Amino acid sequence: MKPIVEIARAAGIDENELELYGKFKAKLSGELWEKVKDRPDGKLILVTAMNPNPAGAGKTLTTIGLSQSLNALGKKTIAALREPSLGPCMGIKGGATGSGKAQILPADDINLHFTGDIHAITSAHNLLAAMIDNHIFQGNALRLNPKKIVWKRAVDMNDRALRNIVVGLGDGNGMAREDGFMITTASEIMAILCLSENLEDLRERVSHIIVGYDLDDAPVRARDIHAVDAMCVLLREAIKPNLVQTIEGTPVLVHGGPFANIAHGCSSVIGTKTALKLADYVVTEAGFGADLGAEKFFDIKCRKAGLMPSAAVVVITVRALKYNGGVKVADLAQENREALERGFANVQRHIENLQKFGIPAVVAINHFATDTQAEVDAVLDLCKQLGVEAALSDVWAKGSQGGIELAEKVARAAEQPSRFRFLYEESLSIRDKIETVVKEVYRGSGVVFSPSALKTLQKVEEMGLSHLPVCMAKTPYSFTDRADVLGAPTDFTISVSEIRISAGAGFIVALTGSLVTMPGLPKKPAAESLYIDEDGRIMGLS
Amino acid sequence: MKPIVEIARAAGIDENELELYGKFKAKLSGELWEKVKDRPDGKLILVTAMNPNPAGAGKTLTTIGLSQSLNALGKKTIAALREPSLGPCMGIKGGATGSGKAQILPADDINLHFTGDIHAITSAHNLLAAMIDNHIFQGNALRLNPKKIVWKRAVDMNDRALRNIVVGLGDGNGMAREDGFMITTASEIMAILCLSENLEDLRERVSHIIVGYDLDDAPVRARDIHAVDAMCVLLREAIKPNLVQTIEGTPVLVHGGPFANIAHGCSSVIGTKTALKLADYVVTEAGFGADLGAEKFFDIKCRKAGLMPSAAVVVITVRALKYNGGVKVADLAQENREALERGFANVQRHIENLQKFGIPAVVAINHFATDTQAEVDAVLDLCKQLGVEAALSDVWAKGSQGGIELAEKVARAAEQPSRFRFLYEESLSIRDKIETVVKEVYRGSGVVFSPSALKTLQKVEEMGLSHLPVCMAKTPYSFTDRADVLGAPTDFTISVSEIRISAGAGFIVALTGSLVTMPGLPKKPAAESLYIDEDGRIMGLS
Repeated sequence: MKPIVEIARAAGIDENELELYGKFKAKLSGELWEKVKDRPDGKLILVTAMNPNPAGAGKTLTTIGLSQSLNALGKKTIAALREPSLGPCMGIKGGATGSGKAQILPADDINLHFTGDIHAITSAHNLLAAMIDNHIFQGNALRLNPKKIVWKRAVDMNDRALRNIVVGLGDGNGMAREDGFMITTASEIMAILCLSENLEDLRERVSHIIVGYDLDDAPVRARDIHAVDAMCVLLREAIKPNLVQTIEGTPVLVHGGPFANIAHGCSSVIGTKTALKLADYVVTEAGFGADLGAEKFFDIKCRKAGLMPSAAVVVITVRALKYNGGVKVADLAQENREALERGFANVQRHIENLQKFGIPAVVAINHFATDTQAEVDAVLDLCKQLGVEAALSDVWAKGSQGGIELAEKVARAAEQPSRFRFLYEESLSIRDKIETVVKEVYRGSGVVFSPSALKTLQKVEEMGLSHLPVCMAKTPYSFTDRADVLGAPTDFTISVSEIRISAGAGFIVALTGSLVTMPGLPKKPAAESLYIDEDGRIMGLS
Repeated sequence: MKPIVEIARAAGIDENELELYGKFKAKLSGELWEKVKDRPDGKLILVTAMNPNPAGAGKTLTTIGLSQSLNALGKKTIAALREPSLGPCMGIKGGATGSGKAQILPADDINLHFTGDIHAITSAHNLLAAMIDNHIFQGNALRLNPKKIVWKRAVDMNDRALRNIVVGLGDGNGMAREDGFMITTASEIMAILCLSENLEDLRERVSHIIVGYDLDDAPVRARDIHAVDAMCVLLREAIKPNLVQTIEGTPVLVHGGPFANIAHGCSSVIGTKTALKLADYVVTEAGFGADLGAEKFFDIKCRKAGLMPSAAVVVITVRALKYNGGVKVADLAQENREALERGFANVQRHIENLQKFGIPAVVAINHFATDTQAEVDAVLDLCKQLGVEAALSDVWAKGSQGGIELAEKVARAAEQPSRFRFLYEESLSIRDKIETVVKEVYRGSGVVFSPSALKTLQKVEEMGLSHLPVCMAKTPYSFTDRADVLGAPTDFTISVSEIRISAGAGFIVALTGSLVTMPGLPKKPAAESLYIDEDGRIMGLS
């Protein structure tokens, strides 16, 4: 690792524009933005994926590797990534900083508390929750309906026991009511932080958060609870992007990490915008597959922030192709060209979808040791037939040298003037927006709304929030709302069970099926396999 | 503010022994300890107090001011302080970084997330909690009794609605059971962190934490849940002391802040020991009045860590004297020499108690604008009659210059060879230890144990933990267990309602009356009065 001061200097950032967190991490100060804000933007490249197999596709790995490869080609590049959450880190997933020769450093720090941003969000979230219950306890001047408080509590941990709880039991402890905890990455504050342009914008958005409804069913907001400034005080540092480096010294801004179902799943607008001022190419990622991640990246993040993406990379794996072709997880290591070809229909649809946004796609085949040459050749051939550029990516084993061909193709695609457009206009009703996404992106025949969803849509209209974009909360494994319907299904409908209003973040969430915003721990949590020696060296985390 | 690198250099700390958190905060690396560990220790001075009026006595202020005054006298001094908790900061108390010309900087940062230590403790605490419920969910191989889980959850917030809750409701969410949250400063992990000598010691202590009992009533510990290393991973940085500075540039180690009732109420052993190697004088504080704070500082912290204190400062205020003399809070600003003289009995008892520990006491009269000259003179006269050194301290208004006389008297007291001794020996039974504290320090006639307390004492003996010191959890306002019995009462008994085993921290908690480990917010929380401008400047916090 190089000192972060050196990485910064190479990226045009002065030492006094950094707030150091040790020698290898730093926050970027507000002064930096003032210095660079009038510069032209670099090219923005989105890394997205096909619908993954349960082990994931390698988007983060590819994003890191591609940024290294572009730099190796002499193109000044910065990656903009999401920040890992402690919950999955201690649960199933382990760290989320890439691996092999395509990882970001210091990996352990980034996977753990990093610069404290997620902790700050947890604190701001729970301060608002405490102030809501305290408001009721102290006389409830706002006439909040205790049965209609929608602001839950948050913790950055996988803890299923906290999903559904009853709070306020016992004498003197307030009003007993049903409540629950979500993991912090699912907090609306995480989405707000990632969509805010600056502290003023953050304050404005936080003030709009709907915490519940009063006895007349009118919304009660964070500003009515007088919590807004205190929450922003807690978020004052968290809103500043974090600078780290890849294993090859490419600068990376790691900032924010909202869920990709209940939220939009992209790293912060502030981080992306800053990177675009500092580099010629910015590589960023969005959560889940392109049906969810890319659609929201374009229709929510790019729309809100006025970003103009130039190209997209669709990460696929031979394993995920076979999985989408009907192979069971246990058998994914075996060669199966038939299943692979069947599964390619999934990739084809994602590529077509990206074209609807006016974005050229390049396919990255994220290489695994179990892939056979015949399988890889078959995939390259399928891409060729489709007229889409593709390259094998072996950045895990080879670092930047494993992604040169990919980087060349991506750079060429990004050279064209961007013809980016949104999928739908703001003026459509929320219902029409949802139907547009379902028909155009998922290719379903229609949407079935539950009575309660329809009722909330009515409320959204009455509240004058129809102009907001939609945020689809759907399984990442399928274009449908059922995780086991793989490939490129047609003739299905999407059921919207519930509508949630994220008035602060500025989107309307459409929930398909049940949504778990608090993961549980597995039989043997990753936490059990961690080891730390007496000098503080950690084993088993990343 | 000077750059923290300069403050460090003046204290003999090299830049490469620092982990910077911005320009004005740093953690001290493990290498520093290796460098200094064989040096002789400086003199350790404890700042404690009489039983306070509800507005507090000014211990932190006096600790900061005295450290500045000692430096002004040419005596190389470092202060070792507790870290503020977010809960009180957003609740009643506001910040806890001193004020006026005796404060530590950067105050806002220290009062907010600081270097993330408390967040790390919250995470480690809640990871263990999640792993306990997950263990039960996944088959409960340890046969944990769900009705006898003693490990609650933690949040660094004042939130009364979380005191008593039911978790695990709903299908697939585990076993429904009663639970609750405590504020993080009340977590046993906070006490452990503050008593640990190093990472190995931390791991050992964490492994001993009792999380509950199995169906045979045998204790189940954190190590049985396989959570120990993961918890230490989360605490890896938190165990390192934090260096900041006073407004006059005196170095201050701010590290750890356990409750002074359910825990011992002192900053970290690591911080204190490091300070003793770097300075000739180390000024530290303990929570609440001397009956709780000083007794635990001596019998728990100094005993465990092998510290040899040289002198104690008893902070008193004219207001607290009048309060202890029977004046109502609303009338404390009015001159009342009779009440003041009555209240002095309280101070006298604390001084006698300190002498039982072999520690010379110096009285610091923390000056308030409402104090009349006649009142101050009366106090000085009372101290003189008692043969105890005393000085007016006006460090709030005058900084170091307001505490010169105090510093001179403290330095003189500390020059004598320490005759420090513990109040009781480890070999006494827990019951006898409690009775010794009650009779010798509080001057009660005896202790009444509840049947359940006696049962737990029996269990303590069976578990072979009788050698541990006791940690009294009592109201800070009175020598008795009733907050309204002021002055220097006699002829009372102390009721011990419950015994809790902190097997990791290494003490046995004796609860007198009910103990609230989760504060609530007041009618108008301090959070409501905070303001932050668009450049991130905070008003109303410190």
